[in-house]
Amino acid sequence: MDKRILIKFEYLGTNFCGYQKQPNKRTVQGEIEQALFKILGIKLTIYASGRTDAGVHSRGSFAHFDLDEKYSVDVRFLAHKLNEHLPEDISVHFAKEVPLEFDSRFSVKKKSYSYNFYLSRHERAIYKSRALRVNDNVKIEPMQSACKYLLGTHDFTSFVARKSGKTDFVRTIYSAEIVSLGDNLYSLEISGNGFLYNMVRIIMGTLIDIGCGRKHPEDMKAIIEGKNRALAGKTVTPEGLYMARVEY
Amino acid sequence: MDKRILIKFEYLGTNFCGYQKQPNKRTVQGEIEQALFKILGIKLTIYASGRTDAGVHSRGSFAHFDLDEKYSVDVRFLAHKLNEHLPEDISVHFAKEVPLEFDSRFSVKKKSYSYNFYLSRHERAIYKSRALRVNDNVKIEPMQSACKYLLGTHDFTSFVARKSGKTDFVRTIYSAEIVSLGDNLYSLEISGNGFLYNMVRIIMGTLIDIGCGRKHPEDMKAIIEGKNRALAGKTVTPEGLYMARVEY
Repeated sequence: MDKRILIKFEYLGTNFCGYQKQPNKRTVQGEIEQALFKILGIKLTIYASGRTDAGVHSRGSFAHFDLDEKYSVDVRFLAHKLNEHLPEDISVHFAKEVPLEFDSRFSVKKKSYSYNFYLSRHERAIYKSRALRVNDNVKIEPMQSACKYLLGTHDFTSFVARKSGKTDFVRTIYSAEIVSLGDNLYSLEISGNGFLYNMVRIIMGTLIDIGCGRKHPEDMKAIIEGKNRALAGKTVTPEGLYMARVEY
Repeated sequence: MDKRILIKFEYLGTNFCGYQKQPNKRTVQGEIEQALFKILGIKLTIYASGRTDAGVHSRGSFAHFDLDEKYSVDVRFLAHKLNEHLPEDISVHFAKEVPLEFDSRFSVKKKSYSYNFYLSRHERAIYKSRALRVNDNVKIEPMQSACKYLLGTHDFTSFVARKSGKTDFVRTIYSAEIVSLGDNLYSLEISGNGFLYNMVRIIMGTLIDIGCGRKHPEDMKAIIEGKNRALAGKTVTPEGLYMARVEY
């Protein structure tokens, strides 16, 4: 009989080739599975709440794995042991046993992402690999008013990377707003029942077009309704993107 | 006849042995003077608004230097050229000519620092080298109420590192508060007419004592009045400290 263990973890994505394990690449999944191997002595596969691309960060992701009962592991100490074996750009928040019906990916009810950007004429040392630079002529207010068109249930075909293999592009957005974090740093904070591949980065690119006047806030409505990737803005770079919160 | 150039810059302090130039050490002053040498072909000394210790960051420091008129430098392009020659953990915001009477250190009217800390049982990858971990049993509210005793003009002898050579320990604090930045991250934001060596880090250590109940908020008053370093908390580590703003 198996038992299912759930872990919550965060990472700084800068020095990873993304979440998903790949041969001969440094990945988050690869590092966590290797740490589990060091602790438990068995090769396990972990199943995560979601994947992220190279350079994308996470403030709190989840993954589960199943363990045959013959392996005695005290789950109370597992997070601590994992942190001892993991590199400093991954940290585990907790580990706990969950019912076998719980699935870290399919049981997700709500996901929140943030995309950090700063207004400046030059690159800033403090925000290197942490936030996207946007020209200081960009206006926040139009971006803010464009966000309201994203709310609700829509077909987000206009905001999906061409290489995505998905066929169902309908998602529900619960909240979307631009928050000021001080020192010219801002964050797009967006939550929904799920997100398509590159969706947050394409939304951000479209909002930047709106912020610098290349598009109007009302255009967001037509871009969604057009269901055409060419209508939206470009996919911004990964370094400003944070998986912020997963809720079950 | 000399002209005086003022530059504003920021840096991520993690990989510097502090601001001040030292032989065979990587310092902020050393890197900027070297970049100026590459651009202008002359060895100059820059005079900064203040120094920071190893690991301390800056969101906006100033420095001036004097240049004989025989060197023709177009100050409009100097910031851009400096950024081309500087490593990615320093960035220059602007350069401009100022009157010879202006002194980047002695003309300062107000300085603001922030000290970032997060509440957690474990180290967090996202905040590595950027914020101090504080146990999650620490209460913010008592720290907040202790801050008000810092306001005004006091002798801050209790909050100065023993190795400081200064003899005048009277400073005026204009504002001091704990601000929530989300995701369990907080910042002590403090401004005054000047700060003693290690003063913000010792204030932060004292506030942590108050937050975890080892001291009471009202004790802050007695600690200030006692003029005795032994009464205050320990000097916290440098990684959470940011030179936030200098005003002239």
